[in-house]
Amino acid sequence: MGTVNAADPVELAARTARFVRETVIPVEREIIVEHRPVTDELRLELVGAARAAGVFGPLSPVEYGGLGLDFRGQAHVLAAAGESLVGPLALHCWAPDDGNIHLLAEAATPEQRERYLAPLARGEVRSAIAMTEPAPGTGSDPSMLRTTATRVAGGWSISGAKHLTTGADGAAFTIVVARTEAGGGTLFGPTMFLVDADNPGMRVVRRMPTLDFTSAPGGHCEVVFDDCRVPDSAVLGQVGLGLEHAQARLAPSRLTFAMNWLGLANRAHGLSAAYITGRQSFGVPIAEHGLAQGLVADNEIDLAAARALVHATAATLDEQGATSSAARHGAAITKTFVSEAVWRVLDRSVQLFGGLGVCEDHLVARFLVEARAFRIYEGPSEVLRVSVARRVFRRVTSTRP
Amino acid sequence: MGTVNAADPVELAARTARFVRETVIPVEREIIVEHRPVTDELRLELVGAARAAGVFGPLSPVEYGGLGLDFRGQAHVLAAAGESLVGPLALHCWAPDDGNIHLLAEAATPEQRERYLAPLARGEVRSAIAMTEPAPGTGSDPSMLRTTATRVAGGWSISGAKHLTTGADGAAFTIVVARTEAGGGTLFGPTMFLVDADNPGMRVVRRMPTLDFTSAPGGHCEVVFDDCRVPDSAVLGQVGLGLEHAQARLAPSRLTFAMNWLGLANRAHGLSAAYITGRQSFGVPIAEHGLAQGLVADNEIDLAAARALVHATAATLDEQGATSSAARHGAAITKTFVSEAVWRVLDRSVQLFGGLGVCEDHLVARFLVEARAFRIYEGPSEVLRVSVARRVFRRVTSTRP
Amino acid sequence: MGTVNAADPVELAARTARFVRETVIPVEREIIVEHRPVTDELRLELVGAARAAGVFGPLSPVEYGGLGLDFRGQAHVLAAAGESLVGPLALHCWAPDDGNIHLLAEAATPEQRERYLAPLARGEVRSAIAMTEPAPGTGSDPSMLRTTATRVAGGWSISGAKHLTTGADGAAFTIVVARTEAGGGTLFGPTMFLVDADNPGMRVVRRMPTLDFTSAPGGHCEVVFDDCRVPDSAVLGQVGLGLEHAQARLAPSRLTFAMNWLGLANRAHGLSAAYITGRQSFGVPIAEHGLAQGLVADNEIDLAAARALVHATAATLDEQGATSSAARHGAAITKTFVSEAVWRVLDRSVQLFGGLGVCEDHLVARFLVEARAFRIYEGPSEVLRVSVARRVFRRVTSTRP
Amino acid sequence: MGTVNAADPVELAARTARFVRETVIPVEREIIVEHRPVTDELRLELVGAARAAGVFGPLSPVEYGGLGLDFRGQAHVLAAAGESLVGPLALHCWAPDDGNIHLLAEAATPEQRERYLAPLARGEVRSAIAMTEPAPGTGSDPSMLRTTATRVAGGWSISGAKHLTTGADGAAFTIVVARTEAGGGTLFGPTMFLVDADNPGMRVVRRMPTLDFTSAPGGHCEVVFDDCRVPDSAVLGQVGLGLEHAQARLAPSRLTFAMNWLGLANRAHGLSAAYITGRQSFGVPIAEHGLAQGLVADNEIDLAAARALVHATAATLDEQGATSSAARHGAAITKTFVSEAVWRVLDRSVQLFGGLGVCEDHLVARFLVEARAFRIYEGPSEVLRVSVARRVFRRVTSTRP
Repeated sequence: MGTVNAADPVELAARTARFVRETVIPVEREIIVEHRPVTDELRLELVGAARAAGVFGPLSPVEYGGLGLDFRGQAHVLAAAGESLVGPLALHCWAPDDGNIHLLAEAATPEQRERYLAPLARGEVRSAIAMTEPAPGTGSDPSMLRTTATRVAGGWSISGAKHLTTGADGAAFTIVVARTEAGGGTLFGPTMFLVDADNPGMRVVRRMPTLDFTSAPGGHCEVVFDDCRVPDSAVLGQVGLGLEHAQARLAPSRLTFAMNWLGLANRAHGLSAAYITGRQSFGVPIAEHGLAQGLVADNEIDLAAARALVHATAATLDEQGATSSAARHGAAITKTFVSEAVWRVLDRSVQLFGGLGVCEDHLVARFLVEARAFRIYEGPSEVLRVSVARRVFRRVTSTRP
Repeated sequence: MGTVNAADPVELAARTARFVRETVIPVEREIIVEHRPVTDELRLELVGAARAAGVFGPLSPVEYGGLGLDFRGQAHVLAAAGESLVGPLALHCWAPDDGNIHLLAEAATPEQRERYLAPLARGEVRSAIAMTEPAPGTGSDPSMLRTTATRVAGGWSISGAKHLTTGADGAAFTIVVARTEAGGGTLFGPTMFLVDADNPGMRVVRRMPTLDFTSAPGGHCEVVFDDCRVPDSAVLGQVGLGLEHAQARLAPSRLTFAMNWLGLANRAHGLSAAYITGRQSFGVPIAEHGLAQGLVADNEIDLAAARALVHATAATLDEQGATSSAARHGAAITKTFVSEAVWRVLDRSVQLFGGLGVCEDHLVARFLVEARAFRIYEGPSEVLRVSVARRVFRRVTSTRP
Repeated sequence: MGTVNAADPVELAARTARFVRETVIPVEREIIVEHRPVTDELRLELVGAARAAGVFGPLSPVEYGGLGLDFRGQAHVLAAAGESLVGPLALHCWAPDDGNIHLLAEAATPEQRERYLAPLARGEVRSAIAMTEPAPGTGSDPSMLRTTATRVAGGWSISGAKHLTTGADGAAFTIVVARTEAGGGTLFGPTMFLVDADNPGMRVVRRMPTLDFTSAPGGHCEVVFDDCRVPDSAVLGQVGLGLEHAQARLAPSRLTFAMNWLGLANRAHGLSAAYITGRQSFGVPIAEHGLAQGLVADNEIDLAAARALVHATAATLDEQGATSSAARHGAAITKTFVSEAVWRVLDRSVQLFGGLGVCEDHLVARFLVEARAFRIYEGPSEVLRVSVARRVFRRVTSTRP
Repeated sequence: MGTVNAADPVELAARTARFVRETVIPVEREIIVEHRPVTDELRLELVGAARAAGVFGPLSPVEYGGLGLDFRGQAHVLAAAGESLVGPLALHCWAPDDGNIHLLAEAATPEQRERYLAPLARGEVRSAIAMTEPAPGTGSDPSMLRTTATRVAGGWSISGAKHLTTGADGAAFTIVVARTEAGGGTLFGPTMFLVDADNPGMRVVRRMPTLDFTSAPGGHCEVVFDDCRVPDSAVLGQVGLGLEHAQARLAPSRLTFAMNWLGLANRAHGLSAAYITGRQSFGVPIAEHGLAQGLVADNEIDLAAARALVHATAATLDEQGATSSAARHGAAITKTFVSEAVWRVLDRSVQLFGGLGVCEDHLVARFLVEARAFRIYEGPSEVLRVSVARRVFRRVTSTRP
């Protein structure tokens, strides 16, 4: 790490780009084309290579061997990492670990930092976050939380069902959000708990058959908690303030995703533009056809706007804090725009490859399929739009003469 | 068949809808959720069930046990069949057999009809069409054809490579389009040949890893022809008129696809609209949220426009002939609009399911992935748009005062 | 009229197209380029010419000298009329008279038919409809109606303010929708009243400066009712059933608009496509540039879908009745799709003209500006989408197994 | 000017916003609602007020009483100016003067600076640029230039026709681009000439009836040059290098437009969002309806992306120079994205106002109409997309391994 100057993210991004090109992309091809499974062994191998290349841990604290970049720095490096579907895995800046690192850095006790944050930030283990529930439990609306933590002697008993629990299969620990039932009729808001993988009260039922199986090493799982006993020391942050703590991870997570996926869209754009300069049709390279040029230009424009927005919002988070109102507004806007722009770019890239675009040989088909979830997780576009509009209404009514 | 009145497509469509709901959809769930492979045994089982239900063969001639519907009739029945990904397989109105039936009915000799069309139209076998080639061969531009048929004693020798050959794996025969080299310096246009599956000069190299593996039972394959010998009786239509014959299948194929996929989009629309009437969020059913209503309304509007366009174009094909200029223009317009509308509808349906939308449990995720190719095959949207515009220019310049 | 065969709308449409080309378009150019005002004299002149050409009154009853076409017939003729901004004025199938004719034909007493419907249907006079009110009165939501009709001896006294009252300036009579206050605490729904132009209690305050001044001869006006006295015989339909009667005009009006504007979009499409075949750029006609071809193809596709939808919905209105649930659903879908498709087509046509596109010399600039209101009046797209979605929810919940 | 610190553009932007709100917007209302003509007297009155408020001349050099801001500084101030249609006129940062100032600062001789740049930069006079020609002359393709400058004794004789000459009516001088015919068979590229308003060889034929009459004080004119004699000292820059000199104004002009129009879109967004918080419909403020929230959120997202892109490109121009390849690429991308985003925002704002949205009382109707040209002038979106794509192809082929 000694030679890495965390203050120069542009140099780091160039180094990351080289690492991804030389080391990660060959592995990515094995994964997509030869169906090499994304195991934890593979993840550790990639993490080791990233560490050796001096690019590991862009958002892990320096004390844990990370690069400790601010958000502006991350904007440079994560887009470079994201050029491969498994680049963020190698650099350890992928969901849900990225957000969990932010959350633990914010809310964990010293003991929890040592036990959970340290190995996680060093990339030695993976983690999960269990929030979403099957109907009639919570989806985008946290007030519908059904999983319940009840006070028992020396700790809590958690019961309930979760699904779409990202990373649960193989995670060293899972952060569970549960309604809190404290005795004596007192009602609290939800609380977050750290549950170890070997807790007998927690069971990973199955990996759900989601479209993004490559980019999610631990899958999106169904998890059941059945009288899952945890001590008081498993409470993350304060009892009843789980949703407030969740805010600590929200804007950063949304932005991290935007950065990573922007990289993948950028890669697809380059691949498809290069492809059509070399393939002929109707007497000229496809790159000479106006409608193909239009798709390429739209990709370039979408990516330029997305990149500018990511960097502008990163600056907001750095300058005003990741839980500021401006940061949350900016992250909601950025996540919405970038997730939709990335989708458009990948879709156009597929189209530019013609018949081969839907064939995984050229990777972009897989990229498109993996990316679909990005418009939904961490807040579907529709839910984010409502929250963006509400902030606009507050602004225009408060500044009215 | 006796009870089927081919003159009442609305009744036939209702019968088809019932058959799909009761017989096909349970199988579809096994395929998508339990990964039951789409084998030829399964296909024959479904075909048998369709025949028993009196809905087999909407576009097979009556003499071969089909329903022999005109295009207007097909518009009703095929949309009902398309409500399941494997409905068109059951009714035997799926690519490339649909187009090959049209083509053989148009261009085959009596012997060829007996040997190829009869078993195909009866659904006993599947067929393939080998047109597209790897670079630098032909994609959308037929002038780039590289596969060559050379005159040899008593017939032809075909050599060249094809890819994206739909249905080749398991097809009883393949229709190959090849440049024709007749001796003596005479040059012809391309010719079509019927090649039996057991011809030692033809080899299916692999099924390509395309996104639409469920809806394409024989895959999209790489096929190599290496001194593939066929007799003169294998020529389909006239030597040198292969592209002209291909026109016979073009407009009908595009329209068939539009009808089938319209059905699937309709199904996804119904599934997603029903889902959000039953799932709560922020205190009300999701169906009460304006942006969700907007997605549902856009689906309804897209489907209404697509349906109206399909029926209008079907009437054009019936009235002016499937190879008329009006039919080709209409089919190009309809294929472009419907393929894009279907994509939008499926995409919105995924979005309406929220996190579960990208999970194949609810099928719509799989529908979306399968549908991506529809905007590319039988003419990518961009190529079709150019041809549509050129016809507009001819019209406006010819009618100018 | 004797020579007109109302049963052949295609022939009528051809005749209308000729009339528009030869007689109306020269006048349109005077209006747009030379700013000739659209007076009632001009309207009567155009109406007279239409009558002479045998194309007057496609939706006026035959007994009043109209063509009495069914909706399918109208679909052909009105699109031909709409090729010019003032074509519908000439044929007398333009808002709000079209809807008022439907309404009066449905709800008027024999005396009212004689006094109001007859001269209106013959095109001798224009009419207005006063529904929308300034805040906090009704916009899209009829429950917010503020204008009130109070029972007085021998009739009613109407008071309140209306705006966006289409056609009020110069109308022979205005149909006013008002809340009904009958004595004795009895509450009714709104009632419709026929108010003559010379009623001293009604005052047209001003023509509002709306974008569509050319296509709206009587403007969109502010109108004030101040103790406006009308006799009982001025009640149109039944007291308290004003909204129900309004339904009679709703679906037909929406469809009429769609037909008329479709014609104008068609004209702009032809003008712009022809323009780029004749104008060079970068060494070739602009028509050879791919992105220009894309705009033209998108216009052609949008128009084909819009046309198909209009004809399909017209058939629904004819077959199931204009106030049937299917008709209302179809008209809402059609109005939404067509108003947005027309806007896109006009916008692309402007773009194809390049710098001249925003110059009224080429008319399309004016067409675009005039058309903007179409996405708002007779129900803004957003309000219609909500109503479309609600009908979908009713359908999917009622047909659920 | 003494109190203005050019190094603090944020403060300047705030001051500009206040000036626009207090001084310019009341005048704008008179112009739009009461049809006060935008005369040169009015322009000078606004310029004087801007000077008094210390906000005049954001892009005029400091030596001429301007603020001499770099592009990053302009990005802040011009968006504030653009909140009113006539704000840029008041600050003197509006086309074509903005680009002409850039051009003269780059290419003028000391004498020309004194005679043309000084009064222009001080806002005392307006200027024009005559480039575009009627068919078959040049539109977007400079190689089609027809206007010709021929060598004559002591100078040049210019003949030809121009149209869409922005600002020509009332301009103190016009910069004319003409093909250069030097004697002796030598061919040059086009040359730029400075032609005084009183030159008898130049005649402003008419202001063309364009949609953007409010925002263009000197109109877009037809201008004829008929043996228009100018001395050698009227050559701007070098003979034959007119297109190269034009580059000096290209990227800055595109960016200036983007900044100004971004301001107007921002204003419309605020107006429409505020409107719907105060207007009820269906029992709640319109701001509670999901589809209205969606329009507002889309506006906010479009504006955030546009703003981020403008600032990022401004930085590129500052850092790499306004004629660098990066600057030209960035300006083409930014002009395309922002012109289309502004259009979408204005269109949605109109829609949010409902029926009043197409009425100029609320200004947004006028904003929409004025803005239409922005997607065409300084390069139509389609032409810019082709140039953007070509640069992408150069990049991907040059970096290919």
